[in-house]
Amino acid sequence: MKAVNVGIIGGTGYTGLELLRILARHPLAEARIITSRGEAGKPVTDLFPSLTGHCDLLFSDPEGADLKSCDFVFSAAPNGVAMTHARGLLDAGVKFIDLSADFRIRDVAVWEQWYGLTHACPELLEQAVYGLPEVNRQSLGEARLVANPGCYPTAVQLGYIPLVENGLVELDSLISDAKSGISGAGRNANMGTLFSEVSDSFKAYAASGHRHLPEIIQGLQDIAGEAVEMVFTPHLLPLIRGIHATLYARLNEKGLSLSMEDMQQLFLDRYQNEPFVQVLPSGAHPDTRSVRGSNYCRISIHRPQGGKTITVLSVEDNLVKGAAGQAIQNMNLMAGFPEESGLGCIALVP
Amino acid sequence: MKAVNVGIIGGTGYTGLELLRILARHPLAEARIITSRGEAGKPVTDLFPSLTGHCDLLFSDPEGADLKSCDFVFSAAPNGVAMTHARGLLDAGVKFIDLSADFRIRDVAVWEQWYGLTHACPELLEQAVYGLPEVNRQSLGEARLVANPGCYPTAVQLGYIPLVENGLVELDSLISDAKSGISGAGRNANMGTLFSEVSDSFKAYAASGHRHLPEIIQGLQDIAGEAVEMVFTPHLLPLIRGIHATLYARLNEKGLSLSMEDMQQLFLDRYQNEPFVQVLPSGAHPDTRSVRGSNYCRISIHRPQGGKTITVLSVEDNLVKGAAGQAIQNMNLMAGFPEESGLGCIALVP
Amino acid sequence: MKAVNVGIIGGTGYTGLELLRILARHPLAEARIITSRGEAGKPVTDLFPSLTGHCDLLFSDPEGADLKSCDFVFSAAPNGVAMTHARGLLDAGVKFIDLSADFRIRDVAVWEQWYGLTHACPELLEQAVYGLPEVNRQSLGEARLVANPGCYPTAVQLGYIPLVENGLVELDSLISDAKSGISGAGRNANMGTLFSEVSDSFKAYAASGHRHLPEIIQGLQDIAGEAVEMVFTPHLLPLIRGIHATLYARLNEKGLSLSMEDMQQLFLDRYQNEPFVQVLPSGAHPDTRSVRGSNYCRISIHRPQGGKTITVLSVEDNLVKGAAGQAIQNMNLMAGFPEESGLGCIALVP
Amino acid sequence: MKAVNVGIIGGTGYTGLELLRILARHPLAEARIITSRGEAGKPVTDLFPSLTGHCDLLFSDPEGADLKSCDFVFSAAPNGVAMTHARGLLDAGVKFIDLSADFRIRDVAVWEQWYGLTHACPELLEQAVYGLPEVNRQSLGEARLVANPGCYPTAVQLGYIPLVENGLVELDSLISDAKSGISGAGRNANMGTLFSEVSDSFKAYAASGHRHLPEIIQGLQDIAGEAVEMVFTPHLLPLIRGIHATLYARLNEKGLSLSMEDMQQLFLDRYQNEPFVQVLPSGAHPDTRSVRGSNYCRISIHRPQGGKTITVLSVEDNLVKGAAGQAIQNMNLMAGFPEESGLGCIALVP
Repeated sequence: MKAVNVGIIGGTGYTGLELLRILARHPLAEARIITSRGEAGKPVTDLFPSLTGHCDLLFSDPEGADLKSCDFVFSAAPNGVAMTHARGLLDAGVKFIDLSADFRIRDVAVWEQWYGLTHACPELLEQAVYGLPEVNRQSLGEARLVANPGCYPTAVQLGYIPLVENGLVELDSLISDAKSGISGAGRNANMGTLFSEVSDSFKAYAASGHRHLPEIIQGLQDIAGEAVEMVFTPHLLPLIRGIHATLYARLNEKGLSLSMEDMQQLFLDRYQNEPFVQVLPSGAHPDTRSVRGSNYCRISIHRPQGGKTITVLSVEDNLVKGAAGQAIQNMNLMAGFPEESGLGCIALVP
Repeated sequence: MKAVNVGIIGGTGYTGLELLRILARHPLAEARIITSRGEAGKPVTDLFPSLTGHCDLLFSDPEGADLKSCDFVFSAAPNGVAMTHARGLLDAGVKFIDLSADFRIRDVAVWEQWYGLTHACPELLEQAVYGLPEVNRQSLGEARLVANPGCYPTAVQLGYIPLVENGLVELDSLISDAKSGISGAGRNANMGTLFSEVSDSFKAYAASGHRHLPEIIQGLQDIAGEAVEMVFTPHLLPLIRGIHATLYARLNEKGLSLSMEDMQQLFLDRYQNEPFVQVLPSGAHPDTRSVRGSNYCRISIHRPQGGKTITVLSVEDNLVKGAAGQAIQNMNLMAGFPEESGLGCIALVP
Repeated sequence: MKAVNVGIIGGTGYTGLELLRILARHPLAEARIITSRGEAGKPVTDLFPSLTGHCDLLFSDPEGADLKSCDFVFSAAPNGVAMTHARGLLDAGVKFIDLSADFRIRDVAVWEQWYGLTHACPELLEQAVYGLPEVNRQSLGEARLVANPGCYPTAVQLGYIPLVENGLVELDSLISDAKSGISGAGRNANMGTLFSEVSDSFKAYAASGHRHLPEIIQGLQDIAGEAVEMVFTPHLLPLIRGIHATLYARLNEKGLSLSMEDMQQLFLDRYQNEPFVQVLPSGAHPDTRSVRGSNYCRISIHRPQGGKTITVLSVEDNLVKGAAGQAIQNMNLMAGFPEESGLGCIALVP
Repeated sequence: MKAVNVGIIGGTGYTGLELLRILARHPLAEARIITSRGEAGKPVTDLFPSLTGHCDLLFSDPEGADLKSCDFVFSAAPNGVAMTHARGLLDAGVKFIDLSADFRIRDVAVWEQWYGLTHACPELLEQAVYGLPEVNRQSLGEARLVANPGCYPTAVQLGYIPLVENGLVELDSLISDAKSGISGAGRNANMGTLFSEVSDSFKAYAASGHRHLPEIIQGLQDIAGEAVEMVFTPHLLPLIRGIHATLYARLNEKGLSLSMEDMQQLFLDRYQNEPFVQVLPSGAHPDTRSVRGSNYCRISIHRPQGGKTITVLSVEDNLVKGAAGQAIQNMNLMAGFPEESGLGCIALVP
């Protein structure tokens, strides 16, 4: 028997599948319950044949599932579901990691505006820890409720953090041009993400405003201690897994005074003890496949024409470091396990 | 017999194939000669079976080919080849359209620095007309030597032109985040563009500096009448055809004073008589497939959060409006044909 | 004004879009009505932006649409719809081309078994002409009701016809291993054809029995004059457009007596006057892209190890020769137009 | 220190990368040497950034590399290389696993005909064990030289074995319609496998004869004890990893007498103790992604229309069960390790 029992709410999407894939090889945690209203009673491997031989669970009806018997519960359900479970689970002593957006934004008014829902338990927002280990490792050790970051916010914040922490860039003119693989849109019947609609094509979406923006702003403002303004443009890539954030910032006086060697060193220093952030040599170009299926975020920096702008390239697998992998990393921290437990999967290349 | 005879230099790449595809259905022009050292003597359809029934040509050896008998010659060869043909062809009265970079940059020193070659005929640069019909339609009517624009420069310039012409944005901080399909890398044995290397992946390249930057700068400076600074980041999309440029500009005082309705109207007005530029409703998101195989550039504008930055989305097919289609459009103008002749192909969707 | 007016029933799918794309450039026919219950009142270009500048139609509600004023009506609706329109349209003198399966099978019992519907007008089956011009060109000239063939049946029959017509193969052991691009599954919200489900993957489906089998059998039996047995295995290719049928047949005594040269000649002879069938040199391998967007079927033959089996490779674009293109070809024959009218589009490669 | 040291010859291709990926997580074996003439001296992670943090090796020059100090050596070099190393390594007591074709065919004349080379050490062919554990597990335990099977032959043989072992099908008319992802073509600059050449397309190749045919025939004849005739048609799928073999066989009298339940049970029984073969419920359709990155072969059977032909669907990852994974499985058997050591990677879906 493994050290901790895990339950998963809403497990029929890609995030649920990814949690199962990682947990199946985790030495210390075991998935014991996975709920789905629609698939209750069916073997998980009916939906996810790739888990054959690695997962014996049946989907449980959410009503009957004894989630309170679990040590950890992950919610992989759509926005608005986790907030209906949180109070009960926390009261029962379960540690709860929400992969949706329900606990990511501290300002409930901002959250309700962007997500179009009334929050069910605003009083819990205060105790929710934002699950970006590279920022909140300490608090995550004590956390009972974790808001797992969005996929874009992870890649974008990790790219900007060294610049913002060191006060090197103008904070009123950040530009994040971000591109995501299509698995980010989830596993739902949807004409817009049919193969014949998105394959061999590319487009921006929500260029006038996307829900991940306030999350990113909140995170960077926490670090900066002052207002941050950003244009954030998401795009849809014709590939399954992967986020590539191309991040632009105008160097301020202090930033302009640094050489690229200094800048590179500063990135290296910032992440030298981070198990899942890899800083590439300056001038390199990370590709999304180099993290496909792994929990790494890979980052490189450029200063085109030695000019006023620094460009940061940041890639991750949206389903791993951008979702399920980071959630497991958070569980490891909350449980006092080695942070890398279960996360040793090497990127699948080619 | 059609009105004009056409020759193509270096016809074994994708641009050559695309010229043939378009010319095969052009009512007034006919491909008569296509050269290739390596494939001389072979039927074109051996290399390009999709042309079966539409092209009877054999590849000719460049030495023996009577290009001077043509009315128009296109060079679809790599950089550095067209400049060795130009003088001879022009002297023979042939009109010459170069799809490579040889005649795109007026400042020969800048050209030689970025392209790493010594220019063979700098004296011809002055008479070369930059083949962007939306800017130089008048001069193209008289041109004998045309520098067909690069693929990125076409999408980027068309997106910025209404802003720059009207003096609405800060010119020292333009950011062009551009993404290109892989056909832009050409039809050459090359490990870097193997299917198994680039499929299901995405990356930036040349983020520190790309050859198309000076071309774009020159074009926008001509319009602005003052210095332009730009960060230009190209990326490689896992799709065959298509460029998507996401263009950012900081609005200046005049720009900030305009409503989005005004701004939209200004784009509509600028391109209302352009047969191959389509301005979408404000807030729309063009996808690259909507121009796949067609000569259109499609553009939309956004002003995220009503802030200081305007975002322009601009898409084209890199092989058509970004190369062969635009070259035919230029030929039409040079020959006095209706500008849309032969260019009626509708995008192939899905 | 063009020579004939065309109406389209159920025009929001890929077949409807493809009909519009082809008709937009047809010199003699013009789409005048296109119906959709769900999209009535909307400009067609809202759904299909690639048609911008080439189609001014609005979708009409099927109730109000004056389809009887058309010269030709195409049904691009799902199975079971065309049969409810046929009687009325035919009585009004409209020529009707059904791209669904409603009129493809003469034996109504067989049809009802495979399609799970009760046929609304079995009495019309007799006058329906099966729209494979390479077999029924003569009757198509007189037809008022045409059953446009399925995508697989077109590629499969065209590959086998020369063998069956000449009595060269055992008819009790045909094996058709067929692969289709995903656009064949249509433009419907459907989890099974999401990009993230089918991209970078491949599988067979309906390996135990597929609806296109009885259609193929009927067609080949008509030619053979005797019973035909076939194993037909469809597969789903991770690409948008294209069918590749790999067809196996055991040579009978007569077949074994022929040399490959003779066999090749026989294929060449059979299709020499067919504008849309291209027989490749023996030993060649057609790829699906070589017909992408065009109305061709391309065929080659192999006799591995000089053995008892002949292999025929047959490719087409499932949306063109396998659907809309063939429908237009049928309209051309029915109207007495040149057979190739409007069908000159060259395959988009790369 | 791990139990055994491993060397890899010719490690710059996909098979080399895949060996490194698997060995990095193998509990008992460690890659210590990897050779490459062209990349000697470079860190492996320069070529393969996805291994960052998991592999500290530099490429070694083949001349200087002390391969004889290894316990196991894998050759991932092209055909014709391993045979020049085998004698020396075996004499030094090294166990040698060749992933190329050098030792797969016992009949040297047949080998030389298909591979166009003179064999360097035909005397070793006799002691080479064909590394298909499902057939030769016993001999692999004693083997010193292993011929790792080809990718197609693995999927094809595993699909046919239960039928052939039990004498259920006609052996003179097998048809294997096989489809492979493009990584099977290797990591070499090659115009034919450029993204723009093969993406969004599909074709057969070598339909008249492919090198893997004699290997398959030899394997099945060993089992059958009589002559086997097969038509084998390989095709190129637009995806990176995956083989799908669609296998047809005509049932003989004995085969016809079995119900599908019996047939299914026979497949289940045959593979019940095989750790890496999964038999799906009868009527299922395995997709290639369900084994992407894993060492499984997944198989299902169909009997269309209850007719004379049985169809077997067999999928694997060509780089894992079809190459590097199977090689590690063979090493495990040769070393007396648990057969699944290091091979627990779950397929990456989506």
